Amino acid sequence: MHRVDLNCDMGESFGAYTIGNDEAILPYITSANIACGFHAGDPGTMRRTVKLALEHGVMIGAHPGLPDLQGFGRRNMAVSPQEAYDLIVYQVGALQGFVQAEGGTMQHVKPHGALYNMAAANPELARAIAEAVYRINPELYLVGLAGSQLVVQGKNIGLHVINEVFADRTYQQDGSLTPRSQPDALIADDEQAVSQVIRMVKEGKVTTRQGTDIEITAETVCIHGDGPHALTFARKIRAALETSGIAVKAMKHPM
Amino acid sequence: MHRVDLNCDMGESFGAYTIGNDEAILPYITSANIACGFHAGDPGTMRRTVKLALEHGVMIGAHPGLPDLQGFGRRNMAVSPQEAYDLIVYQVGALQGFVQAEGGTMQHVKPHGALYNMAAANPELARAIAEAVYRINPELYLVGLAGSQLVVQGKNIGLHVINEVFADRTYQQDGSLTPRSQPDALIADDEQAVSQVIRMVKEGKVTTRQGTDIEITAETVCIHGDGPHALTFARKIRAALETSGIAVKAMKHPM
Amino acid sequence: MHRVDLNCDMGESFGAYTIGNDEAILPYITSANIACGFHAGDPGTMRRTVKLALEHGVMIGAHPGLPDLQGFGRRNMAVSPQEAYDLIVYQVGALQGFVQAEGGTMQHVKPHGALYNMAAANPELARAIAEAVYRINPELYLVGLAGSQLVVQGKNIGLHVINEVFADRTYQQDGSLTPRSQPDALIADDEQAVSQVIRMVKEGKVTTRQGTDIEITAETVCIHGDGPHALTFARKIRAALETSGIAVKAMKHPM
Amino acid sequence: MHRVDLNCDMGESFGAYTIGNDEAILPYITSANIACGFHAGDPGTMRRTVKLALEHGVMIGAHPGLPDLQGFGRRNMAVSPQEAYDLIVYQVGALQGFVQAEGGTMQHVKPHGALYNMAAANPELARAIAEAVYRINPELYLVGLAGSQLVVQGKNIGLHVINEVFADRTYQQDGSLTPRSQPDALIADDEQAVSQVIRMVKEGKVTTRQGTDIEITAETVCIHGDGPHALTFARKIRAALETSGIAVKAMKHPM
Repeated sequence: MHRVDLNCDMGESFGAYTIGNDEAILPYITSANIACGFHAGDPGTMRRTVKLALEHGVMIGAHPGLPDLQGFGRRNMAVSPQEAYDLIVYQVGALQGFVQAEGGTMQHVKPHGALYNMAAANPELARAIAEAVYRINPELYLVGLAGSQLVVQGKNIGLHVINEVFADRTYQQDGSLTPRSQPDALIADDEQAVSQVIRMVKEGKVTTRQGTDIEITAETVCIHGDGPHALTFARKIRAALETSGIAVKAMKHPM
Repeated sequence: MHRVDLNCDMGESFGAYTIGNDEAILPYITSANIACGFHAGDPGTMRRTVKLALEHGVMIGAHPGLPDLQGFGRRNMAVSPQEAYDLIVYQVGALQGFVQAEGGTMQHVKPHGALYNMAAANPELARAIAEAVYRINPELYLVGLAGSQLVVQGKNIGLHVINEVFADRTYQQDGSLTPRSQPDALIADDEQAVSQVIRMVKEGKVTTRQGTDIEITAETVCIHGDGPHALTFARKIRAALETSGIAVKAMKHPM
Repeated sequence: MHRVDLNCDMGESFGAYTIGNDEAILPYITSANIACGFHAGDPGTMRRTVKLALEHGVMIGAHPGLPDLQGFGRRNMAVSPQEAYDLIVYQVGALQGFVQAEGGTMQHVKPHGALYNMAAANPELARAIAEAVYRINPELYLVGLAGSQLVVQGKNIGLHVINEVFADRTYQQDGSLTPRSQPDALIADDEQAVSQVIRMVKEGKVTTRQGTDIEITAETVCIHGDGPHALTFARKIRAALETSGIAVKAMKHPM
Repeated sequence: MHRVDLNCDMGESFGAYTIGNDEAILPYITSANIACGFHAGDPGTMRRTVKLALEHGVMIGAHPGLPDLQGFGRRNMAVSPQEAYDLIVYQVGALQGFVQAEGGTMQHVKPHGALYNMAAANPELARAIAEAVYRINPELYLVGLAGSQLVVQGKNIGLHVINEVFADRTYQQDGSLTPRSQPDALIADDEQAVSQVIRMVKEGKVTTRQGTDIEITAETVCIHGDGPHALTFARKIRAALETSGIAVKAMKHPM
């Protein structure tokens, strides 16, 4: 039987500032990536989000990012592999503090934004991130773009890795996402987005924007928690997956 | 037989900025309080300082502070007990990440600067800090000003607490430190500072600036790591304690 | 003829985070207090808000706060008078950069949040803030709580000062605002809030929560830009003031 | 007669952290580039450094950098031209606040670190920076790497530009500095560094590391303020320039 995890970025509020709709989205997902205070999130938000996820039976992951709150971690920064290692250990440790304090366990780590994208293409950076996760706790799963360097290096180092796919993004022939600067980077139509995901999970294939099919491993699907449309889409994709006979289960959930 | 721990604040450098002389001081102390990135320290400094402490066989503690890098955590801030709880969990968790990654264990938590002082006098703040430490790991020791609310609340909550004394500060009749704004707050003479510590450890007493003796519990002595004089004093107090037949042992060291 | 200014805090968004509804409120106010990046705001938000205010013919003021983005500048911090002076010069200068770049002029400075409240009661802090404003540009107006130390010290130093009143807050017998921790700190009823303001402007009096009348100088009224109710209230108070024959004019507007 | 300006980065301390030896270097230079709080510096340091420069009759420039205190502004960040514009206006404005408060005038703007390097090669970024400077005050001089895009775009926009050369760095055939990652990027020998500068000023030529001569415009020479060697070198280059009959004058100093 086919299975997949549904993940969403959470805990992105900061002080008086609110982003996202965590409580409404949680019933539809199986894994939450919680921001750790560098690109978004703050200690109080982390505590509340960890508690919320535990209450909903949703598995918890750390979502560490670049030290760039103003840019929401979306601007590339020339961090060295050693600096990437350090900021992963710091942020994963910080979130782990809240998880321990609430009596939970951490399931996974998924780098955020520019760090995720840079690590997808840069083997040294990917290896440094994987090493950081491994040294904190080798039982943690490492989530990266399906087929990317992050997944490759994570596996090399001995981590259980999870290939992530996107419902609403188009793919290039090399398996990378079409950059957002391109006109056809996004899939606006919900039905098409859902179909792409179901095919990725069931057949392990996706049609690229060049029109060819490539192989892809879909172990978790990223959905967005922000914007007026987020909740509707979360409901829709969850229902469609289950209707298609795909089990929606957290990464670490035993089948 | 009498025993005492010698602790020093460490890992206070930040990026291109250096403070302290950690490597030179480490041979003379038994416990290191490592800054966690809010008032001082950064992820790279934390990693290096944890490694250094482990190499010297010095026990590691977290030294969390207020979110005020520019003020070095020395300016009082009206944080609520909940905010204090959150910033302790975050910072202790972050340091724990590095300790785990290096294969060590954390011994204690000692709040820094204004947070330490506010918690000494404010039972709600002290309780929130103690609860944060307890919920992360009830085996951690909590270090506070001897006889202060931090020690009282830590004990109430079920933590092993450590009473801290200062070699170079004078005491008030109520057991508090003479504020630095007063002319006789500091003991400039090394011999006098050393004698005060030895008497506190051996007799459990200190002469206040009002001239009376009060009882004091001295389980750890704080020495400074910064300034040209720091290294000389560290050597001197360590030697004087041992000459006086006092065992200088880390807090968690079995006698 | 009576006149009054209507001011509102603006430009409080930060990076990906949005607060307030600046564009909708601007038609109803005469002066905008623009956040300067310490407690809220960022360089891009400052540029956009300055442009918006100029487009609406609304006068611009700097709204400097404590260096506490996470606490939105609302937590008291023990900054020295010299530190307060420095953070005022820095932030007012930064906003002035955008005002110059857009070809506008700055009308006033109004400290934010905890800095405003601390300066209302602390003459040394108030004097340091006033001195900072005066030394940057003695033509700037300084806005403070009506009758407070900020207004007193600003006048002493030679600045034109503006007494600020609040529509939706109750007053104590000493002219201070009832702290928000008290049950009757806020006036929930719009009509009552509007009446309080009109009486303050026309009669120079306000009834305190102790039931007595005190004298108060009302030169500008602070209205809130956040919350679902903000826009409605802005419209209502503007209309009521004009209906009552009170001219709603910016602080520096010649009558 | 030949002339040149000697400039040095200053005001790079932050809170409790000290970098540089500003007071000792000031007698030997004619222009100070003062950090503005993003990559280094803080409001108090800015005030003190502005005063020091005025006391020494040294001209003042703003030294704005990327928002990366931990990386000292030396890590490339993918800021957009608009973001670069905004961070220049903010920081130049902030420093201008202190200059106004001390009754001085600002002479120039020189971007710092990674921002300087990125702007040397990227015309859009360079143009955005030049536009920011021009819109704050078209009388400000813009300092950039000799012959770089920053100088080209500054001139295009109507600013007076200043070509900067380095005493202790080797040059490539295209006029760029040899990257620090290369073994021969630095000139360790003082005599050779001084000779290179004198030739650049007098002949307008420099021998590249490829052994060929290229033309170069040397209007200001950057010397370093940090490190044990800084003061000696500052003295030496100042003396050598004057002995060679080169007038050492600030950029805006009338000849």
